Amino acid sequence: MEKKNAIYEGKAKILYATENPDQLICYYKDDATAGNGAKKGTIVDKGIMNNKITMFFFDLLAKEGISNHVIEVMDDRNVLIKKLDIVPLEVIIRNVAAGSLAKRLGLEEGTPMSMPVIELCYKNDDLGDPMVNRYHVLACKLASAEELDEIEAQALKINKIMVDYLKTKNIDLIDFKLEFGRDKDGKIILADEISPDNCRFWDSVTKEKLDKDRFRRDLGNVEDAYKEILKRLTGEVR
Amino acid sequence: MEKKNAIYEGKAKILYATENPDQLICYYKDDATAGNGAKKGTIVDKGIMNNKITMFFFDLLAKEGISNHVIEVMDDRNVLIKKLDIVPLEVIIRNVAAGSLAKRLGLEEGTPMSMPVIELCYKNDDLGDPMVNRYHVLACKLASAEELDEIEAQALKINKIMVDYLKTKNIDLIDFKLEFGRDKDGKIILADEISPDNCRFWDSVTKEKLDKDRFRRDLGNVEDAYKEILKRLTGEVR
Ligand SMILES: Nc1ncnc2c1ncn2[C@@H]1O[C@H](COP(=O)(O)OP(=O)(O)OP(=O)(O)O)[C@@H](O)[C@H]1O
Ligand SMILES: Nc1ncnc2c1ncn2[C@@H]1O[C@H](COP(=O)(O)OP(=O)(O)OP(=O)(O)O)[C@@H](O)[C@H]1O
Ligand SMILES: [Mg+2]
Ligand SMILES: [Mg+2]
Repeated sequence: MEKKNAIYEGKAKILYATENPDQLICYYKDDATAGNGAKKGTIVDKGIMNNKITMFFFDLLAKEGISNHVIEVMDDRNVLIKKLDIVPLEVIIRNVAAGSLAKRLGLEEGTPMSMPVIELCYKNDDLGDPMVNRYHVLACKLASAEELDEIEAQALKINKIMVDYLKTKNIDLIDFKLEFGRDKDGKIILADEISPDNCRFWDSVTKEKLDKDRFRRDLGNVEDAYKEILKRLTGEVR
Repeated sequence: MEKKNAIYEGKAKILYATENPDQLICYYKDDATAGNGAKKGTIVDKGIMNNKITMFFFDLLAKEGISNHVIEVMDDRNVLIKKLDIVPLEVIIRNVAAGSLAKRLGLEEGTPMSMPVIELCYKNDDLGDPMVNRYHVLACKLASAEELDEIEAQALKINKIMVDYLKTKNIDLIDFKLEFGRDKDGKIILADEISPDNCRFWDSVTKEKLDKDRFRRDLGNVEDAYKEILKRLTGEVR
């Protein structure tokens, strides 16, 4: 499949059109941003690692019946994907308080939640991706009630699969962000990526952060964290 | 019933113990604050007017089967109420975008919502009463799922009754805040107050603000707005 014009350049990926109007090529960049673009940098080979890590999770989830947008991995940085009508929500699932949740509820980072917490943020950079609830989503027609039910059910199932798997790799899944889209038949499909860019992974024993918080909070060893996750998941040493 | 010691002084009311451990006296003050206490002032006779306006709405709602915490109005500023275990949530119902909702969603103030929107804020001054969703409420055990369902059902019913009634008085109910509590049997009961302090009332024709926004935004004629609402509801001229 041949790359045509870039249709969208985001902070971490570029989407290219292809000859097929229903298919895109997703290119993973090394660019890293934090604070809605306020902080910018590069993480060496992040794009390659995030592509591999995402594919690892997508395959793990597919085995359990969660379908995703990937058609074919083309190379280290390029994936052919189904073009979806993205539901403009960041779907965040949280098992342990960290980041904005810790702040919002006045909880110490690392406090386990008594049950998984889903948060929805309206994907809108100008508004700073504000948190919204079910009523906002329905009133603003960002998704239908049925779509939202389906998204939340998939999110909780994905969380369970990932938490259980990562436990065997000595990784605590603190929280993560998902995006979903509608395919041509209106079916809700898992999209975007699942990587250290949008997950909080802590070593189960040392509680060392193995994710983008190392970049966000200037903790150093950023590349090493991504490499460590890739190694624990796939055995691949970079 | 005799007033004993004050058990809580809030920004707008004081709660006094009574001889009966299940009953409190609620005293309505004239104090007004905005921005979580950042701005302070006094609105002449606000306490008297809010007491009357609250009783008017409570009676209106009681006729439609919504019970509330009031046992007996004692005088202009004092009401004997059932002592409830307050659910630590501000339950906000919005029919038209204004205030923080307009900001959050990037809507112009005055934009009608396509359906009533409920927002929940965790009543916690130190945290600035943060907005929370159903998952936060359940995970933090602020209320049970059944309680939350009951609260939201009552809130929507209250909204319908108030919107319809106020329309006949040429008032648009833009949004308002409710509080609920649990009685001794665990039943969810409407508590606190319903007044221009925690409702946005706009004249249906001129869209003039007839509520605490006149104080919050230094629009002038603050007392007149409270008087106008009281007059339209009860005919009483103060
Ligand atoms: N299958 C898909 N079809 C169409 N768009 C997709 C698909 N999967 C992901 N996207 C979108 O592609 C973009 C990926 O780019 P990137 O992750 O770099 O964006 P971003 O900087 O996070 O910004 P934003 O997510 O706010 O657009 C996102 O906008 C995402 O919603
Ligand atoms: N029936 C009731 N039983 C017990 N407490 C009640 C009852 N009704 C209302 N309250 C509580 O009484 C207080 C009323 O005081 P006021 O409205 O001045 O408080 P406030 O300044 O708004 O602060 P906050 O609501 O954050 O405590 C509130 O804390 C409210 O939750
Ligand atoms: Mg993204
Ligand atoms: Mg109050």
